[in-house]
Amino acid sequence: MSRVYLDHNATMPLCYAAKAAMVSAMEICGNPSSVHAEGRAAKALVEKARAQIASAFGADGADIVFTSGSTEGAALAMSGRDLHAASVEHDAVRAWAVEDLQVSPEGEVHVTDPVSSALQLANSETGVIQMLPQGLAVTDATQAFGKLPVAFNWMGATMALISAHKLGGPKGIGAVVLKRGTDLAAQIKGGGQEMGRRSGTENVVGIAGFGAAAEAAAQALANGVWERVAMLRDTMEAALAAGSPDTIFVGTSASRLPNTSCFATPGWKGETQVMQMDLSGFAISAGSACSSGKVRASAVLTAMGYDELTAQSAVRVSLGPDTTETDVLRFAESWCAKQKKHRARVA
Amino acid sequence: MSRVYLDHNATMPLCYAAKAAMVSAMEICGNPSSVHAEGRAAKALVEKARAQIASAFGADGADIVFTSGSTEGAALAMSGRDLHAASVEHDAVRAWAVEDLQVSPEGEVHVTDPVSSALQLANSETGVIQMLPQGLAVTDATQAFGKLPVAFNWMGATMALISAHKLGGPKGIGAVVLKRGTDLAAQIKGGGQEMGRRSGTENVVGIAGFGAAAEAAAQALANGVWERVAMLRDTMEAALAAGSPDTIFVGTSASRLPNTSCFATPGWKGETQVMQMDLSGFAISAGSACSSGKVRASAVLTAMGYDELTAQSAVRVSLGPDTTETDVLRFAESWCAKQKKHRARVA
Repeated sequence: MSRVYLDHNATMPLCYAAKAAMVSAMEICGNPSSVHAEGRAAKALVEKARAQIASAFGADGADIVFTSGSTEGAALAMSGRDLHAASVEHDAVRAWAVEDLQVSPEGEVHVTDPVSSALQLANSETGVIQMLPQGLAVTDATQAFGKLPVAFNWMGATMALISAHKLGGPKGIGAVVLKRGTDLAAQIKGGGQEMGRRSGTENVVGIAGFGAAAEAAAQALANGVWERVAMLRDTMEAALAAGSPDTIFVGTSASRLPNTSCFATPGWKGETQVMQMDLSGFAISAGSACSSGKVRASAVLTAMGYDELTAQSAVRVSLGPDTTETDVLRFAESWCAKQKKHRARVA
Repeated sequence: MSRVYLDHNATMPLCYAAKAAMVSAMEICGNPSSVHAEGRAAKALVEKARAQIASAFGADGADIVFTSGSTEGAALAMSGRDLHAASVEHDAVRAWAVEDLQVSPEGEVHVTDPVSSALQLANSETGVIQMLPQGLAVTDATQAFGKLPVAFNWMGATMALISAHKLGGPKGIGAVVLKRGTDLAAQIKGGGQEMGRRSGTENVVGIAGFGAAAEAAAQALANGVWERVAMLRDTMEAALAAGSPDTIFVGTSASRLPNTSCFATPGWKGETQVMQMDLSGFAISAGSACSSGKVRASAVLTAMGYDELTAQSAVRVSLGPDTTETDVLRFAESWCAKQKKHRARVA
């Protein structure tokens, strides 16, 4: 039986368009900073991708500064600014934030001073979507971009963090999108690339993959791919709930990403579930990927008011554009069987 | 007539081994931080590359922290430390350095206090190779790695900066190599990747390409590829000198990288030469790629004591493992013809 990958919020498989663009970019040898023909060809790839991303992200006219991903993006956009944020943010954002914003039991964050706050567009663990207040300093749009209709130019934030590998592009490339003219002091200095905001020879192959993936993701979104995924997610949750009535589904009363399901079964550790499901052929996650090696309660669930025992028992199942009904039903069946065994063991 | 690429110090074409490793890595979908099988497969690729790089760089037992390239590496290794350096360093190093080390007319840097200094192993513009003093804080080995026999464990530096695209790997990936146990405060924080020294989901495809390229470069070096290249470089310089007796070859009395030639023809601007040679089908450079869009005298040549007029007229020709004798002789012929026309114009 082939494995079923249900951890798309950790990272998505490379989409076909990204692979093709990357293989093609591998043949362009120039350095984008070089003025000769080879350099200009490389530069053209970078600028093509920038335009593809601007279009897919509804950010025409905005500045797009390529980074190595949203983690670097968060450092670039936030370090030294003491922005306010909630504990539901990703660790890469929390690293730079004053964590004092309140979170409702549904996972909604209450922002008091938008111009000095950071707020994610969607949560990686629960999928909960936030309403962004006008004038927000920074939004982490990493999980939302590609899965939700988004338009940077209308979302009210001054800067946004995006990452290729969450939408079918390669790992190790992302961007800070910012309203034109916004101040952004470089942290990586030298050659003056990216208009002096982020030096270093550009990751041309990665950028080409990012651009192609963003374009493909926007098309898939427009074609209704994620509506189908949302139905599969709901089918799966119904099957899980039927098989395990004491399981708590997190964030279901809020708007969620179409592909994300987070559920807790108090007493059955998330890490244990991940390992058991892995052995059964399913890739899922407890918390975000970055922290998945660490045994601790999800800060996201704790911030939403869940107790430690519940938070420790949460897992995340995140579907992708190629996930099938068979995949989710097989998963639900397998998970429910394991849950029954667990219950029998502790009874 | 096909174009001749003679700008390998700006960036090298991807070698076959790197392409193959990257295409293969594209099929591995996991996030290296995920604990399931897909995540472990991605992690294995990263660790395989780390071992390949350690072996090629003579750094077994040292720590290798992946970055997006040497420019980020310089920021990670140097920012906030006020290390001393000379003006012949790359802009990415100069950005963080106190520029007070003396440079000899041959391009050799005099380091007074190694533990608080940075010194490049080889210069990107002239190819001049430095003797590293024992205890040196940081060496920028970007241009040397792959072209010279190097062994981090014996070179006397505590940290070294390396980059994939200077040795046949992809752009956008590099590393800081450091003696095990050396303090290195993270600047990009969050998920805690790279043992907490550099967070962010790893550039798996790029890292796989870097590892394969490093291994292939070490093999090519051992096979004598660069000895052949050095002979071609010398052939080219002899042809250029014969055709243009008033041209000054820079750094020839020092040890140089085998592939690099820097020469100045006072009065004939380097930028003009680059454009004229580009139109004739040859990719060369004036100064480093990063600054090649900017019209200014090379800081490297100025630091070596050349006057402004001479420094402005310098160009760099950097050969690669696939450069042929026909390539360099065609280049020399074409350049000498242009130089003759230039002389006639200004006479």
